[in-house]
Amino acid sequence: MSKAFHTIGLIGKPHHPGTHKTLKRLHHWLTMQAYDVYVEERVAAEIGPQTKSVDLLQIGEYCDLAIVVGGDGNMLGAARVLARFDIGVIGVNRGNLGFLTDLPPDTFEEALGKVLQGEYETEHRFLLESEVHRHGEMKSSNTAVNEAVLHPGKIAHMIEFEVYIDDKFMYSQRADGMIVSTPTGSTAYSLSAGGAILTPNLEALILVPMFPHTLSCRPIVVDACSIIKLVVSPENGDALEVSCDGHVTLPVLPGDEIIVRRSKERLRLIHPKGYNYFHVLRNKLGWGSKLF
Amino acid sequence: MSKAFHTIGLIGKPHHPGTHKTLKRLHHWLTMQAYDVYVEERVAAEIGPQTKSVDLLQIGEYCDLAIVVGGDGNMLGAARVLARFDIGVIGVNRGNLGFLTDLPPDTFEEALGKVLQGEYETEHRFLLESEVHRHGEMKSSNTAVNEAVLHPGKIAHMIEFEVYIDDKFMYSQRADGMIVSTPTGSTAYSLSAGGAILTPNLEALILVPMFPHTLSCRPIVVDACSIIKLVVSPENGDALEVSCDGHVTLPVLPGDEIIVRRSKERLRLIHPKGYNYFHVLRNKLGWGSKLF
Amino acid sequence: MSKAFHTIGLIGKPHHPGTHKTLKRLHHWLTMQAYDVYVEERVAAEIGPQTKSVDLLQIGEYCDLAIVVGGDGNMLGAARVLARFDIGVIGVNRGNLGFLTDLPPDTFEEALGKVLQGEYETEHRFLLESEVHRHGEMKSSNTAVNEAVLHPGKIAHMIEFEVYIDDKFMYSQRADGMIVSTPTGSTAYSLSAGGAILTPNLEALILVPMFPHTLSCRPIVVDACSIIKLVVSPENGDALEVSCDGHVTLPVLPGDEIIVRRSKERLRLIHPKGYNYFHVLRNKLGWGSKLF
Amino acid sequence: MSKAFHTIGLIGKPHHPGTHKTLKRLHHWLTMQAYDVYVEERVAAEIGPQTKSVDLLQIGEYCDLAIVVGGDGNMLGAARVLARFDIGVIGVNRGNLGFLTDLPPDTFEEALGKVLQGEYETEHRFLLESEVHRHGEMKSSNTAVNEAVLHPGKIAHMIEFEVYIDDKFMYSQRADGMIVSTPTGSTAYSLSAGGAILTPNLEALILVPMFPHTLSCRPIVVDACSIIKLVVSPENGDALEVSCDGHVTLPVLPGDEIIVRRSKERLRLIHPKGYNYFHVLRNKLGWGSKLF
Repeated sequence: MSKAFHTIGLIGKPHHPGTHKTLKRLHHWLTMQAYDVYVEERVAAEIGPQTKSVDLLQIGEYCDLAIVVGGDGNMLGAARVLARFDIGVIGVNRGNLGFLTDLPPDTFEEALGKVLQGEYETEHRFLLESEVHRHGEMKSSNTAVNEAVLHPGKIAHMIEFEVYIDDKFMYSQRADGMIVSTPTGSTAYSLSAGGAILTPNLEALILVPMFPHTLSCRPIVVDACSIIKLVVSPENGDALEVSCDGHVTLPVLPGDEIIVRRSKERLRLIHPKGYNYFHVLRNKLGWGSKLF
Repeated sequence: MSKAFHTIGLIGKPHHPGTHKTLKRLHHWLTMQAYDVYVEERVAAEIGPQTKSVDLLQIGEYCDLAIVVGGDGNMLGAARVLARFDIGVIGVNRGNLGFLTDLPPDTFEEALGKVLQGEYETEHRFLLESEVHRHGEMKSSNTAVNEAVLHPGKIAHMIEFEVYIDDKFMYSQRADGMIVSTPTGSTAYSLSAGGAILTPNLEALILVPMFPHTLSCRPIVVDACSIIKLVVSPENGDALEVSCDGHVTLPVLPGDEIIVRRSKERLRLIHPKGYNYFHVLRNKLGWGSKLF
Repeated sequence: MSKAFHTIGLIGKPHHPGTHKTLKRLHHWLTMQAYDVYVEERVAAEIGPQTKSVDLLQIGEYCDLAIVVGGDGNMLGAARVLARFDIGVIGVNRGNLGFLTDLPPDTFEEALGKVLQGEYETEHRFLLESEVHRHGEMKSSNTAVNEAVLHPGKIAHMIEFEVYIDDKFMYSQRADGMIVSTPTGSTAYSLSAGGAILTPNLEALILVPMFPHTLSCRPIVVDACSIIKLVVSPENGDALEVSCDGHVTLPVLPGDEIIVRRSKERLRLIHPKGYNYFHVLRNKLGWGSKLF
Repeated sequence: MSKAFHTIGLIGKPHHPGTHKTLKRLHHWLTMQAYDVYVEERVAAEIGPQTKSVDLLQIGEYCDLAIVVGGDGNMLGAARVLARFDIGVIGVNRGNLGFLTDLPPDTFEEALGKVLQGEYETEHRFLLESEVHRHGEMKSSNTAVNEAVLHPGKIAHMIEFEVYIDDKFMYSQRADGMIVSTPTGSTAYSLSAGGAILTPNLEALILVPMFPHTLSCRPIVVDACSIIKLVVSPENGDALEVSCDGHVTLPVLPGDEIIVRRSKERLRLIHPKGYNYFHVLRNKLGWGSKLF
């Protein structure tokens, strides 16, 4: 049978026993089948001396499939980098079914074997680009798979900002912060903050104010091609931040403008054939199974 | 100046003094400008003996613009019928700014004058088609501008049903009912039930369970081209209903399947130039104005 | 060992195989121990010809302990009647742990044996009294263990009413209805409607509007000795209802006043020693167990 | 007419033009009536050279009434200190009606005149005592009028902790933090976080998790005499804080225990006769006025 992928990158959480075990098993299993296997440098040493150790960017350049072992958090980190390359990404979870990591760690061979032979489904998940502008100049930017969050450095400190959609003023807000989430992120932080769930294929963003003072404020869903602009009040006393996926942080000063928009890059997420988003959702959220 | 519209239909709430006054003033003002004016039969008699009285379907056939005087409820009633015709629809509110009725009742002449000369914006709002199927046969169907609601005949009686999106099982639900709403309806009943707001141009639907037993259930936003199927448990003791815009009711029996999908018809909603959806939203929901 | 109870009433869901089996086993087990056992008439025939069949009121008069087999719904029905008598009530659940029925159906002997020897905890749960007043006259009244709900006969029909607390005007409301719940009911319908949880010993009521038009309306917790008055707008077109525990229904007309207050009666709920309300809560709502 | 109060302390926001104007007018008006007036040192210089300048503790010792000019935030700061003294406290708002500051700034004379003659209502609002314990030792403590909040130093960083009520384990939580609020605080931060409103006289606390991972978690109301214990997971990587009324901060380390309980002190809040809590609530939250 012809191979759907040829060069495979392995990525995982460093210094984590469960991940280590699965990576080692994956490395052996793939090498036995004559795949060209590269391993991300932070875990390469754990696997053995002959391992081809590369960094994440090189995996993006050399490989046509990246396998991420770990939780959704590890997938997010890899995805922010790999989305700009022509590479498929699949996740092996570390024990609990994840939204992005759907291969089981102990029995991945059967499902992954089929994927490698071409029996897979592809989903394209769009990313967000966040930019901080000061006095008309872009000061910093970064990408997010899940969400961009404007918030004060300190919790429980109200901030004031205005929100514009495609340069149309939407509202001013006094709140602890503001979440702009992709459909992928709609089951993460945005959901804890009261957001609605957006199915992964939806070309939309959800804006969720965090603890807004105006009780009538509700999450609002806008077209993914909208340009979201948050203008921080010059009156805010303290420093603020834009946080991307809860990992990368952009500093924000009073008076800054934050632009959030759909990135041109899309994550090419690979699932075993028969993948069912709603199955994962029911499983993660404890929703009801079939009645009859 | 050339006319953007030629034949105009007037629609309004019967036996309502404020509406009556505005309709009379509209009729006079339009006739003076030599527009061909038809009046919906339920209000025609109130306006005068020479009025050209027609029914709603005839307004759809004869006119290129319908003016609805009243609240959003009156607009919904007219829109469900007029969406299938090649006609623009504009609303004069009865005192409070509405989401669909944005011309002021006492000073409509200036704004409407410009609209009639072509200075207007057009929005296309999609409708929903709801069908009740029993033993493989379609028993009844109707359209909705805002939402279709599955609910028991009686309040506070839990019902059980399964939800499928494009024939994929999403979840089973024990709840007081289920709302499937358009973006237009997302600021109406769906919002009271905890739904997110969908901007009018979004091609999406929001599904909001009513008082679900499973506390982890949240509103879910799906692509507008999705086929929503609700399968009512055969165990439900009582009769149920599907309600369209809170007005038209389709009877449902235990075991029935309800299909809700985007209708092929779209309402052509006319707004004065410079119309701003967010302005209406802020006004209706008491949201914050500009800070600085 | 001395007996803590002497005359025991058995109550359960009629025509339900699981309940039937447990009732029979209970009847045999108690009779063997020389307890004087009465059985509620709707299930007495199922148990056998020599059974002492009585109605619920007689159980209240004759017995010092009632054992209810079934779900929380069966307990509510029995509790509304038995609260006015000097009797303890304990529940055997029909398979799932209930908030009010905490003895396991298949292994009740050990726990119940200890209860009968005096090793038990007593909780007093207060009830609500609902009255419908018309033109100054009380038209009907009933009690509720969980909640009183004002609602229209038909779902998704907005109603208008004013709310007074101890004759102080609180607010007017346009909503689908209004829930007034006890702490016992705070984990039932009120919770689905967005209410907070009130621990059982709290002398407080929670008022939860159902799908309120005013988005800033929130559940409000008031002292249990407050008199709640709901004044239905004379403008409401249709008939309404007050529903007690979702079972008993009082008819309401436009203009009526509904008074809801704490009843003088309290349910004496018996639990095995070591009963932990939070254990039930975690179990029913899927909350997190101990971390470390 | 006999005087209800004799020695009056004036408190207000320093360097604030509106507050300054009201304080000056108050000082003159009270001195003219021969009241013994002390002024808090941070605003005394603004009022004039002959002013009797004292600190907040001295106001507590010398005065039988304190008048706080400003917003609810200024009242909170004064109340945390004054609650331990035998003194009544009344608030003059700075323009917007506050929950705690209900005298109008421009026409305070009439209402305040009556209060000074004894026509007033007294409310006792309880405070919270928060303590941080480490290895069995109390490290720090403080009081709060509104709420105690456990949170990470940084926003959007999940923390893990266990919650005990009267030493009974309630649940473990992964969340951005936890709010423990008094009835007074139930209309402040707790409300933005989704909490229910507790009327001021209620002897209860509300616990509101902030952005909990477990979607079924809901605000929970417990008796005010409960001892709340939050045990921070030793696994939490970072430093945390307990914030009292958003002003005073207690440092928290992984493994610490936070005890929150009702303080023995109560704020004696003075209102003009006829004060109506629901009136303030409707006004602040935009709730519906009388219908008919």
